[in-house]
Amino acid sequence: MTFLDMLRQAEQTNGSMLCVGLDPDPARFPASLKGDAGRIFDFCARIVDATADLAMAFKPQIAYFAAHRAEEQLEKLMRHMRSAAPHVPVILDAKRGDIGSTAEQYAIEAFERYGADAVTLSPFMGFDSVAPYLQYHGKGAFLLCRTSNPGGDDLQNQRLSSVPGEPLLYEHVARLAQGPWNLNGQLGLVVGATYPAEIERVRALAPTLPLLIPGVGAQGGDALATVKAGWRPEGQIIVNSSRAILYASAGDDFADAARREAIKTRDTLRAARAA
Amino acid sequence: MTFLDMLRQAEQTNGSMLCVGLDPDPARFPASLKGDAGRIFDFCARIVDATADLAMAFKPQIAYFAAHRAEEQLEKLMRHMRSAAPHVPVILDAKRGDIGSTAEQYAIEAFERYGADAVTLSPFMGFDSVAPYLQYHGKGAFLLCRTSNPGGDDLQNQRLSSVPGEPLLYEHVARLAQGPWNLNGQLGLVVGATYPAEIERVRALAPTLPLLIPGVGAQGGDALATVKAGWRPEGQIIVNSSRAILYASAGDDFADAARREAIKTRDTLRAARAA
Repeated sequence: MTFLDMLRQAEQTNGSMLCVGLDPDPARFPASLKGDAGRIFDFCARIVDATADLAMAFKPQIAYFAAHRAEEQLEKLMRHMRSAAPHVPVILDAKRGDIGSTAEQYAIEAFERYGADAVTLSPFMGFDSVAPYLQYHGKGAFLLCRTSNPGGDDLQNQRLSSVPGEPLLYEHVARLAQGPWNLNGQLGLVVGATYPAEIERVRALAPTLPLLIPGVGAQGGDALATVKAGWRPEGQIIVNSSRAILYASAGDDFADAARREAIKTRDTLRAARAA
Repeated sequence: MTFLDMLRQAEQTNGSMLCVGLDPDPARFPASLKGDAGRIFDFCARIVDATADLAMAFKPQIAYFAAHRAEEQLEKLMRHMRSAAPHVPVILDAKRGDIGSTAEQYAIEAFERYGADAVTLSPFMGFDSVAPYLQYHGKGAFLLCRTSNPGGDDLQNQRLSSVPGEPLLYEHVARLAQGPWNLNGQLGLVVGATYPAEIERVRALAPTLPLLIPGVGAQGGDALATVKAGWRPEGQIIVNSSRAILYASAGDDFADAARREAIKTRDTLRAARAA
């Protein structure tokens, strides 16, 4: 089964375009777990259990584990997701970007050690920084394309006079990912939710790639506009929400609150598609 | 002491512009350690001990540790470098690139968990993906600028018509790093050794930034041309060699062979500066 098939199946099974982002910050855990980095697995597993029938994907952000020496907890969490939500693909958010034998090592980390179904990557070093991941058939790779942070413009929004059609840098990345770089249909793109016109532009350049769209929820971003701009029958969107779900309640009802928030976001996205 | 001061001091103490890259691949270890990921620390510590008086910097590549579940060995190695070579700064090669709270987590990983003196970063997400690292005064950050892999051209070598002077993308990064992004003099640049003309161009745009230059040794790259293009009295270069040193011998004399190779490279670089 390809990664795209996995995404499609999860979307259908759970009727959802929601990706639950797992950015565990012990400082924001509920009182009974608060500040305890040894409880990262426990916290995340509760969230996974509460949203396993609501998510199209899970996206653990590896920085939150690495900062707390929690690699073993991440391994355990990956196994837990596989068993508690076998139909939900897991995207390891790592934004790796290196070449040759180093990229091979990162691919081993993501796909063999952690068993992720897909990984996020930076395109800055070019195709040979992406190719080693494509050796893993059935796995996916989402390239950073257009991010909606304030500094996103610094490089991504520059116009390239040396490329036919003079695209912006992020448009160039979208074209490469839809075209020559996409050897086995394994690529997707990361596009922020803040500017729907840019999602629409990326979708026009990359009609069939899955778009991973962070920025709905705690980071703002309008769900209706996002879905209109990005979703197509042949072009999936995976709309990520992390903090709004994880920290929906600061109390011991955090898993129930996360579930309620995830239902709300899933339904908003669904309604936007029907609208 | 700033990171630049550390670099200067190490350069003077060891009379060296050589950075010893630590990319431990158990498959390439000598027979007595071969294939044993549990011996990564032992292998690297032997290399560190053999080159502590020859290196201007050490550069562990985190992917090689992460692929082998060797984070604890990396922590131990960082402590070992601090004690065996306290005057040699350690650059953690991680090429992180993320924003906001995620970048803060990666900064905690690099500077607090591992105690690195500097880290490598990708500039693709813009200034706010760099800023969190600059909160650690005294620490350094090397931004990817121009890499000499085949795909390096894909993005870095495109011409930007939207920036005054129409620089290439890598030239734009060099200017940002020398200028507006370099809040506290903490930034450096990563520039591949394959094309000396490009090192010279980066040096012209970033006259005082330290340049981390991989690609001498196993990756090719001419030492004399590299030094001529990049070194200036006010602009340091840190010339990295990894595999040529680590795997100079496949026998149990690997540490002695690494030392001989490091001396050779250090002397070649030194002679190039005098030439």
